[in-house]
Amino acid sequence: MSLDHFLTDTREQLEAALTQCFAQSASSRLRESVLYSLLDGGKRLRPALVRAAAEVVEAPADSWLSPACALEMVHVYSLIHDDLPAMDNDDLRRGKPTNHKQFDEATAILAGDALQAEAFLLLATAEQFSNSQARQMITTLAQAAGAGGMVGGQMIDLQSEHKTLSLTELENLHALKTGALIKAALQLGALCQPQPNSVKLAALNQYGSAIGLAFQITDDILDVTASTEVLGKPQGSDVAAEKSTYVSLLGLDGARQKAQEQQASAIAALQKAGLDSNSLLWQLADYVLQRDH
Amino acid sequence: MSLDHFLTDTREQLEAALTQCFAQSASSRLRESVLYSLLDGGKRLRPALVRAAAEVVEAPADSWLSPACALEMVHVYSLIHDDLPAMDNDDLRRGKPTNHKQFDEATAILAGDALQAEAFLLLATAEQFSNSQARQMITTLAQAAGAGGMVGGQMIDLQSEHKTLSLTELENLHALKTGALIKAALQLGALCQPQPNSVKLAALNQYGSAIGLAFQITDDILDVTASTEVLGKPQGSDVAAEKSTYVSLLGLDGARQKAQEQQASAIAALQKAGLDSNSLLWQLADYVLQRDH
Repeated sequence: MSLDHFLTDTREQLEAALTQCFAQSASSRLRESVLYSLLDGGKRLRPALVRAAAEVVEAPADSWLSPACALEMVHVYSLIHDDLPAMDNDDLRRGKPTNHKQFDEATAILAGDALQAEAFLLLATAEQFSNSQARQMITTLAQAAGAGGMVGGQMIDLQSEHKTLSLTELENLHALKTGALIKAALQLGALCQPQPNSVKLAALNQYGSAIGLAFQITDDILDVTASTEVLGKPQGSDVAAEKSTYVSLLGLDGARQKAQEQQASAIAALQKAGLDSNSLLWQLADYVLQRDH
Repeated sequence: MSLDHFLTDTREQLEAALTQCFAQSASSRLRESVLYSLLDGGKRLRPALVRAAAEVVEAPADSWLSPACALEMVHVYSLIHDDLPAMDNDDLRRGKPTNHKQFDEATAILAGDALQAEAFLLLATAEQFSNSQARQMITTLAQAAGAGGMVGGQMIDLQSEHKTLSLTELENLHALKTGALIKAALQLGALCQPQPNSVKLAALNQYGSAIGLAFQITDDILDVTASTEVLGKPQGSDVAAEKSTYVSLLGLDGARQKAQEQQASAIAALQKAGLDSNSLLWQLADYVLQRDH
């Protein structure tokens, strides 16, 4: 399957599944607000990573879909809360009004809260998994999402505004804020197979760490080089917020070089697992660096 | 054990356990904010219900503690988010500044988010439970917390301000907003026993629904009758927000009568399970109605 076809097919399956969610919402406005953000046409990189990792460990077909939906719910909830006036105060997300602009702040807070609960509910009730698999998936997602992962990284990010970070501090921040969920994507994919090969597991972990970092460096580069129209949010917003970025610390060329080093590390991990340049994860590593938004 | 002793002992064990949480928080400020709200001296009614239900089904000693902590984390996260300016905009909670007043809004949002993730992490990693038990507990908590439970109820509550609800609408709102977690407390306690007696399970469910409603009616009564000092929040805040309450719909005497009806239903459920007035759940049913804050 070509990468384009894979990404399109993953997006379509994911969005069809997400549309069915929140049927039990007690409030139609809450459901509307949740689906507004869930179905806003993101790249769906994390779900694609879950699926590609599940294929590497030869997991049962379609087993990737529930964990991919759960992970995307956590990602989307974090975007909704991140955009709030008290946080990044963003009006636009992917070219559309952010959730609190389209609805209101209270609804956006609750939509994020509901998404997080639903993510764990989805994993706990996914019938294709054994109790052991479901429990490991929930552990993985909760660790990646919580105070020792994404939310911890967001807190550090807020505390770092108007400060110059060291490169080590910046890497720690992003390993938590964006890296933890990306790494979790690979781990969730691997857990779709009850007894994955340990060499492949170690390779997926190394790949996840490297690709997470490469993703963030590319984000920092795009904030400087891409247009507002292509980004769907104001170009230069990191500079405006006086945030330390890979570009501000290393310069544009230095940042590009660091992204390439991470890509090389990701590729090396895949080679250890016996994968070649035709594999989806290899192509995804290229895609993460070459995307224009 | 007397009720007083039981409540004190439960509170002490719970708070000792909660103090150990968030050791892995990536940000010390985030941990500080979380513990500020987690350890603020609430009544710990939900943990007491988890423990009392676990005793009814003869669950292993101390097995109640992890689910009680998880449930309290969800309860406390909901209070932090509920108090935010975009929601109820409360400055005081139990006589102390609310989380966003003590810290700031962004920190309060993240503290709530981190608490929710940690609650599921705690259940997923509680070693005393089988995979099946852990999975059922996570399902129970996620359903009670999410769009079909507490968060759905909060959304309806916000949409109901400055409106007069029917009694049915008010009951639905509170069955979700406060009732879902209280019912979950009984269910989590029951799940501490791998194979609980089905008669006792049904009784605990009926008790949970009745006691949840009685709790909310009593809250509405106290909002009118108790002093600001005793409540730890402004007296009459429901009236100020033009909220429909059991008192506004039924009058003070009507509300008191309805609370007593619910208490009677809770007691009837306990009798079906063979419990008498010496049992902790029976005493807790009295306590819920007779408390002064």
